Amino acid sequence: MTGGNGAGSTPTRVEDRGTSWLDASGSDHEIVLSTRVRLARNLQGYVFSVRAGAEDRLGILDRVRGALAATGRLEEGGVLWEMADLEPVDRRLLHERHIVSRELIGPDDGTPPVGAALAITSSGPCGLMINEEDHLRLQSLRNGMELEAAWGEVSALDEALGRELPFAFHHEFGFLTCCPTNVGTGLRASVLLHLPGLVLTKEISKVLQGISQVGLTYRGLYGEGSDIVGNFFQISNQTTLGKSESDLVDHLREIVGQVVEYEKRARAVLLREAPNVLEDKVWRAYGILRHARSLSFDETMNLLSGVRLGLTLKLLRTPRVRTLNEIMIFAQSAHLERRAGRTLDEGDADVYRASLVRERLAAESGDGSSPGEPRPDADKSTR
Amino acid sequence: MTGGNGAGSTPTRVEDRGTSWLDASGSDHEIVLSTRVRLARNLQGYVFSVRAGAEDRLGILDRVRGALAATGRLEEGGVLWEMADLEPVDRRLLHERHIVSRELIGPDDGTPPVGAALAITSSGPCGLMINEEDHLRLQSLRNGMELEAAWGEVSALDEALGRELPFAFHHEFGFLTCCPTNVGTGLRASVLLHLPGLVLTKEISKVLQGISQVGLTYRGLYGEGSDIVGNFFQISNQTTLGKSESDLVDHLREIVGQVVEYEKRARAVLLREAPNVLEDKVWRAYGILRHARSLSFDETMNLLSGVRLGLTLKLLRTPRVRTLNEIMIFAQSAHLERRAGRTLDEGDADVYRASLVRERLAAESGDGSSPGEPRPDADKSTR
Repeated sequence: MTGGNGAGSTPTRVEDRGTSWLDASGSDHEIVLSTRVRLARNLQGYVFSVRAGAEDRLGILDRVRGALAATGRLEEGGVLWEMADLEPVDRRLLHERHIVSRELIGPDDGTPPVGAALAITSSGPCGLMINEEDHLRLQSLRNGMELEAAWGEVSALDEALGRELPFAFHHEFGFLTCCPTNVGTGLRASVLLHLPGLVLTKEISKVLQGISQVGLTYRGLYGEGSDIVGNFFQISNQTTLGKSESDLVDHLREIVGQVVEYEKRARAVLLREAPNVLEDKVWRAYGILRHARSLSFDETMNLLSGVRLGLTLKLLRTPRVRTLNEIMIFAQSAHLERRAGRTLDEGDADVYRASLVRERLAAESGDGSSPGEPRPDADKSTR
Repeated sequence: MTGGNGAGSTPTRVEDRGTSWLDASGSDHEIVLSTRVRLARNLQGYVFSVRAGAEDRLGILDRVRGALAATGRLEEGGVLWEMADLEPVDRRLLHERHIVSRELIGPDDGTPPVGAALAITSSGPCGLMINEEDHLRLQSLRNGMELEAAWGEVSALDEALGRELPFAFHHEFGFLTCCPTNVGTGLRASVLLHLPGLVLTKEISKVLQGISQVGLTYRGLYGEGSDIVGNFFQISNQTTLGKSESDLVDHLREIVGQVVEYEKRARAVLLREAPNVLEDKVWRAYGILRHARSLSFDETMNLLSGVRLGLTLKLLRTPRVRTLNEIMIFAQSAHLERRAGRTLDEGDADVYRASLVRERLAAESGDGSSPGEPRPDADKSTR
């Protein structure tokens, strides 16, 4: 593995990066898990990635590395990792943290695309993917409802890099991108929302329909084509053309603000009209997470959703929201394999996942151990 | 409510009686919840209960009361309760404790049959129902696999009462009973078994088939016609005619001994071949019981079955088997209403049941409280 900061110092470990957005510090963080803003940019003089040969792709990587170095953003903790240099499990780790796309890392059992790289800059939770669908994908990922902050960061990085690199731009269309849906601003802003109240009151389809009618779209936890698990919905702008970046961001913020309000009202209704049902649901989810010895990822997400709802409604006192955020990410397969130090088949992964979840919940329960437990967990020492 | 001990002292409270068989002290008590032996007896000179008028029934009650007094078995803790004198909730309480039959207490919203009464004698867990299907139903209910002890007790009571009362007896048929299936010895011996291993390995139907072929029969937790819940099976002799009492008891003991062996082997197989699945099942059951805020009776029984299995296999350290036995009985509706001090509809009962279960499990968990609990339970003070 090679560090890209050019200073010869030891590169930061992959497993230490890309989790700052889990810290439950952002605005409305009980409902809004994260905010992401990304900009698609391409370099003049190179064909789009999908058609670019190895030479072009490596040339692009060199140009971008040089530009990043010139902006000073690879100093003091900034890194540039070529995907091909990372261990396969680390590539998956970054994907599970929502820091790189599936397209950037390639298939789990194959090699990544030539020149595919990730830069994480020194200035906060901002970075870029290189040689993804577009030559550059600038991105900021933050906890909570933080559209302005995320947009501000990406925008600053865009300006800084724009001074070093000739971005492909058309006076009429705006920034040119590989896929026509990104032409114009190249901006996609999205917010990951936890909406169990709207799901339980069955108002969610009405809300999602409303979202589609105002030029926004929704997806599951893992973006385009992914299923809804754990009542998480990613809402983002559909169009990138014909509006300014700040208009797009403002519009999304306004609509998401309404959805957050609807969700809060739905929760209040549930608490008023079915308190026993709700309390039971929340505590059962906690009880199963706290004691199960085998948990699939989807079940874990659905149970975490129940516990998260319980915390927000003050039906539960522990764990912290940050812990729930971390479990969501750390309970995925690459993270479990890092923890186990070996490849895990599905059955093993389910056992490891349950062990991780128990450990994290017990640590915050006030008693520190699983009641009735006959012996210490054999796998506790692996973490 | 009138005490029947004739000494004018305060009668023992109904809610304090009929639970000694829950104490998890008997042989093989992890698999065998209880042993029951009963003898059906009728008095010469009176028509069978189904045809007897009020005068006859009250006459029978007087005769039996006198005979019991003459044997000294109503002294020092012995009681005789006429069902009509008890509060309705107390009649249901006794039924839930398996001490009286549905027939003896009559419908929940009606009055009990004339002269229907229960005697609990001073000598151990033995007693009799008066004016049930037969004039007398002598019975002993003990924890664990205790056929000899139970039979010995009932037999001793039978002899003592036989000296005072003219039992209807035919030199060829034996003791005469209302229902022909009880003619002869009038004996029914039954054992309540917990067989989750045989259910999980799907061997149970084979075992039950074998039982039927050797003159035994099986039922659910609440006797004839009741569903199987919580993997509990009541196995008893089918025939009462043509064999001596000790032959019947010996035969049942032998067959039940085999079933217990099969169950132990099935558990060993499960533990060897699917330890993760088994451990997960057990801990989920515990987790839900420990944290749920609403529990139906059937779900509670099924979850208790999982926890009981976990205790036996040493996958769980707490609670005690006795506690599980008590929850089985105390989580029923009349018991919950006694605890609540009021009538409970189904939804309320489910909430109360969950509260009782949490309290009992938390008390033995080592931490004494439900982790993550935001506040003390409002209903804790009602018990």
